[in-house]
Amino acid sequence: METLELRTPRREALVRITPALQELVAANNWRDGALVVFCPHTTAGLTVNEDADPDVAADMVDILARLVPRDPGYRHAEGNSDAHVKTTLAGPSLTLIVADGQIRLGTWQGVYLCEFDGPRTRKIWVQWLGQAAP
Amino acid sequence: METLELRTPRREALVRITPALQELVAANNWRDGALVVFCPHTTAGLTVNEDADPDVAADMVDILARLVPRDPGYRHAEGNSDAHVKTTLAGPSLTLIVADGQIRLGTWQGVYLCEFDGPRTRKIWVQWLGQAAP
Amino acid sequence: METLELRTPRREALVRITPALQELVAANNWRDGALVVFCPHTTAGLTVNEDADPDVAADMVDILARLVPRDPGYRHAEGNSDAHVKTTLAGPSLTLIVADGQIRLGTWQGVYLCEFDGPRTRKIWVQWLGQAAP
Repeated sequence: METLELRTPRREALVRITPALQELVAANNWRDGALVVFCPHTTAGLTVNEDADPDVAADMVDILARLVPRDPGYRHAEGNSDAHVKTTLAGPSLTLIVADGQIRLGTWQGVYLCEFDGPRTRKIWVQWLGQAAP
Repeated sequence: METLELRTPRREALVRITPALQELVAANNWRDGALVVFCPHTTAGLTVNEDADPDVAADMVDILARLVPRDPGYRHAEGNSDAHVKTTLAGPSLTLIVADGQIRLGTWQGVYLCEFDGPRTRKIWVQWLGQAAP
Repeated sequence: METLELRTPRREALVRITPALQELVAANNWRDGALVVFCPHTTAGLTVNEDADPDVAADMVDILARLVPRDPGYRHAEGNSDAHVKTTLAGPSLTLIVADGQIRLGTWQGVYLCEFDGPRTRKIWVQWLGQAAP
């Protein structure tokens, strides 16, 4: 299992991790299979979404904040229940296809860590699954 | 990696892809392992949900449209930020169990492409992961 | 493929399944790879979230119920469309990293079945994917 580490810039942000993942694939010479990417935090998740226009990531942060407001009426005493729920909505893990040594993403796609309770230093875990015989 | 292609019927729709996936498994004689199913688009996702009653898919489209309205106040100039957010909520990929050459789904489950900004021609990528020794 | 079975306590609840999954990994002597955990139901999903404070799970249930209310205006005659949508939001499956025979989770994380239309007896399917050569 490999570990990436990154610093997130503010409470809520989508941080692009595509280049770091692709470097890991190249450094390990992984060719054909899949990457399991896992976020070991309970207030940050992972997603794949538009890479070309940074406004999409900004809109995503705003829309999710409107969906799940920071309401002081939650039970959880730390006051970040909104971040826990948004983490479940985004999801804790991704499985990405690797073929011929490349992470296969659509033309407009990038891989993002979704920070919902930063700024913090976050870890991302990566497990390689090579293709076995059918 | 294998590619499926399909045409979606309107802006927002759940399109059933279970038979196409099962045909792919049979054609490749994949027996025991998992299918990574990945949607290379930023305004369409993948989900597993009820197959029996088509009203469930129609309700899903309506409820998601109510959750994330097409609001002209978003930053992203293409005006489809709702579709990007819904794609993250559904998720870009699925990992499906294959055992004895069959995709294992519950009695009422089907696999769906979730179109949020159609109608369009969409691709779906599929990577086979066979079981290796423990 | 292995099957776990559990009883959920009420209509909406997060039920912790981390120990049952870890026992399965130990009993099968699975060492390095990934677990595909799949929920074969259309009104229950899977997530990873905070394990330490049970208030987080309670807040999650409340916030999701506020997001997707039990509205009698849905098409689906069984009246549980809210549960179907919440299942798609949480997601039907997880892929968990296993290294040195341990499911790798962050300090505060636990794995949960998300019941949205219980109480019921629910199944969880688990497929092991060992690491093959790169």
